[in-house]
Amino acid sequence: MHPRLAEKLMTAEEAAELIVDGDVIGASGFTLSGYPKAVAPFIAAKARRLHANGEPFSIALYTGASTGDEMDGELTRANALSHRIPYQSHPDLRNAINTGAVEFSDLHLSHVAQYVRSGFLKKPTVALVDAVDVTPEGHIYLSTSGGSTATYLMMADKIIIELNAYMGEGFKGFHDIFIPKPPPMRERIPIYKVDDRIGMPYVAVPPEKIAAIVQTNAPDGTRPLKDPADIDLTIAGHLVEFIKHERAQGRLPEGLPFQSGVGNVANAVLGTMAKDPTLGSVCLYTEVIQDSVFDLIDYDKLIFASGTALTLSIPGQERVKREMDMFKTKVLLRQQEISNHPEIIRRLGTVAMNTALEFDIFGNVNSTHVLGSHMMNGIGGSADFTRNAYLPIFMSPSVAKGGAISSVVPMVSHADHSEHSTKIFVTEQGLADVRGMAPVNRARHIIDRCAHPDYKPLLKEYLEYGLKHAPSKHTPQVLRRAFEFHLRYEQTGSMLPK
Amino acid sequence: MHPRLAEKLMTAEEAAELIVDGDVIGASGFTLSGYPKAVAPFIAAKARRLHANGEPFSIALYTGASTGDEMDGELTRANALSHRIPYQSHPDLRNAINTGAVEFSDLHLSHVAQYVRSGFLKKPTVALVDAVDVTPEGHIYLSTSGGSTATYLMMADKIIIELNAYMGEGFKGFHDIFIPKPPPMRERIPIYKVDDRIGMPYVAVPPEKIAAIVQTNAPDGTRPLKDPADIDLTIAGHLVEFIKHERAQGRLPEGLPFQSGVGNVANAVLGTMAKDPTLGSVCLYTEVIQDSVFDLIDYDKLIFASGTALTLSIPGQERVKREMDMFKTKVLLRQQEISNHPEIIRRLGTVAMNTALEFDIFGNVNSTHVLGSHMMNGIGGSADFTRNAYLPIFMSPSVAKGGAISSVVPMVSHADHSEHSTKIFVTEQGLADVRGMAPVNRARHIIDRCAHPDYKPLLKEYLEYGLKHAPSKHTPQVLRRAFEFHLRYEQTGSMLPK
Repeated sequence: MHPRLAEKLMTAEEAAELIVDGDVIGASGFTLSGYPKAVAPFIAAKARRLHANGEPFSIALYTGASTGDEMDGELTRANALSHRIPYQSHPDLRNAINTGAVEFSDLHLSHVAQYVRSGFLKKPTVALVDAVDVTPEGHIYLSTSGGSTATYLMMADKIIIELNAYMGEGFKGFHDIFIPKPPPMRERIPIYKVDDRIGMPYVAVPPEKIAAIVQTNAPDGTRPLKDPADIDLTIAGHLVEFIKHERAQGRLPEGLPFQSGVGNVANAVLGTMAKDPTLGSVCLYTEVIQDSVFDLIDYDKLIFASGTALTLSIPGQERVKREMDMFKTKVLLRQQEISNHPEIIRRLGTVAMNTALEFDIFGNVNSTHVLGSHMMNGIGGSADFTRNAYLPIFMSPSVAKGGAISSVVPMVSHADHSEHSTKIFVTEQGLADVRGMAPVNRARHIIDRCAHPDYKPLLKEYLEYGLKHAPSKHTPQVLRRAFEFHLRYEQTGSMLPK
Repeated sequence: MHPRLAEKLMTAEEAAELIVDGDVIGASGFTLSGYPKAVAPFIAAKARRLHANGEPFSIALYTGASTGDEMDGELTRANALSHRIPYQSHPDLRNAINTGAVEFSDLHLSHVAQYVRSGFLKKPTVALVDAVDVTPEGHIYLSTSGGSTATYLMMADKIIIELNAYMGEGFKGFHDIFIPKPPPMRERIPIYKVDDRIGMPYVAVPPEKIAAIVQTNAPDGTRPLKDPADIDLTIAGHLVEFIKHERAQGRLPEGLPFQSGVGNVANAVLGTMAKDPTLGSVCLYTEVIQDSVFDLIDYDKLIFASGTALTLSIPGQERVKREMDMFKTKVLLRQQEISNHPEIIRRLGTVAMNTALEFDIFGNVNSTHVLGSHMMNGIGGSADFTRNAYLPIFMSPSVAKGGAISSVVPMVSHADHSEHSTKIFVTEQGLADVRGMAPVNRARHIIDRCAHPDYKPLLKEYLEYGLKHAPSKHTPQVLRRAFEFHLRYEQTGSMLPK
């Protein structure tokens, strides 16, 4: 190691001492990929120590998206977090947000870096970044996620690098780093195909800002991958049939890229697309690249995948290490403001496939709040993609908790995507294509095609009641009854009447 | 007139005979500007005649946005409309939508043309277009609005032109007509400054598609302009102070264009900006250009205004006729998919200022549905701009109907803009800047700064109740009580308790 870098080497515990009460940490990490794993537990330990002495210690944490237990878990349990931006999925942190212990700003992921640069959000004081290499000139090569890391590195006064040997230097070349200029002198973002490279393979920082380098060797703490459940495969089957039908009708040109949300259903959709011999090759302009990318590669169906995070199981991470050179010809990681950028999503004609927490008969979608109140994970990139997609699709099993919860409700308890922006809904029951329909027709379609049989009569009764008693027959919502499914669930533990 | 055109001349009554039951008319017109005024009343007469004979006659009508009484009013009263897309503001049509007589698809205005071209919406069979000139080669020069007219002209089999002498041929040159290619081969939209021209001044159609030319001479039937009320000027004052404060803080670079919604508040904001000697010149990248553009010109504060509609009072229209050449150096009209395009709005760093019907303490905005059910006008371009703006702002008087309705409510009865997308709220009471805040802080701020004093205690009590009893302290909504303001209004005619 170059002496100018070697002199910055320290232990994770020493690096944690650089963090002080009130710091705003801008960290790498996106859906549990590429997040720093070594220093955060020692920041948590420091917080515990100071709190035990009656001294204050809390920090704000900005990331790409969710991180693992070493960061979101440890810092939460140590009461070290005051404010968290813009997405999370850790059970302890989720709980702290919902008890009011941590303030959480749930932002569109494409907005975060711009808001930081423009001063709309407090400036990060420290950047804490998982990297595969760093040079004496200050070139930092990121690991398995892009996130908003380049902007945090640019804005922070102090940089702590976790130099992670797990992927190692061989990973150099996966990233394309591009930060748009501020308006009004902003130029186009010259991506016209999913594999276009427009920036640098590293983030360049003034080397004197690098305050610490901590050597680590750890894979991403992603959750183990489950085999797709029958219900996921059924949803995927409806969706792939629909895509083929739209192609046959000439309404979905070949070559449009797909965005696929996070989770089991999304993984099953890409797996089904890989295995369907009558569906051609696909390209992805997406946010998170999951293990299903291997299905696409193995069936020789992947043209190219652009994303901001490579969120793979441990066997998936091992495979990337083994097949690094092949993988680099097929996959590219961008900063999240580019992977999720409205300009590119709209230009490329992206087909957006995201999971809904619940949707209502008129087509409004809830992605974030259980019972209108309890935060799940955050909106993530779902609106970045939905709002600018060529064709936006929402998917969900029709019921949850063994049938006690219907995903199709009279009125969503929180609306993250309005009915103006939604077009296609899929559950294991079927697919509703509501393009061009007025609200009442949308409702009839969504009930018929997507609702679970146990809930269909209730939803139909609500719609017919509204057509008689609502203030208007355009969107016949009856506010007095709109949340009766949710209230019944709160009272009895089931949305179904006894 | 060239003989190839002269042979297509006919009366409005004759042209109306070309429309048959089941036609889908794609018409010009946007917020009562540039809509066809002569033929529609005869289509309505034909519908009445056929209905009297027991024969069916109904059509679908796609436009840019709202049209005047000659079109939306006449066709509605004759029961001639089956389906209306994408926006309206006529009292008779609004009533027909809310009684269920007309199906209304309320779409983001930037989406309409693409949906028509991609086959997501039924193909227009007839284009009916107000124009200032047409050539034998099929070059059609549009009048006072762009709308989605170029796409309707391209897609329809049959074209009816209302050749309107009111603005006349002198109006040629105001339009910049550009239709993006379909994806995946789509290129950038090369607008980098509000006055960049990227297309043609006319729409080119195969001349054989022109089925009729009807000569007319009529101004746009816009509503008379009111002097701004004190409350509008107070809102405008808060907003302009905020803009100056943000400039001073370095958070709002000089030169960012403004988008200003439709109506009196928006008009007052631009008027106030014009008259404030300490605020520099402004440029507009907007949808509708209203009479306030004259204030900006008269105070020498207008750099340039790009929009899709020139919605002026009759005196305003007369002034444009008198000062056509000056006006052409200051104003440009685009197709609405370009004026409202996410790529351009985001690139330019547009500051979006729109009016809310109501907003809730957590920052969700209702732009469309009264009591969650009754359609007002439609979402228009408000989400096109809000979602992609550098800084999105919503404005509203804090109360309506003499205080019986609070614009600030516990939960919006319909959410068109989610709290993820909103940042700044302004009423005559004050301005709430909720950037970076978690929901509870947002609520405290919005109540303190924006709510009317009569409603503040009620809103505070709701928030504190939620912090005790809601499922979560993150967004402490209590579904059982969330619509109590609206339900009280339905029952008693006021959101205030007796």
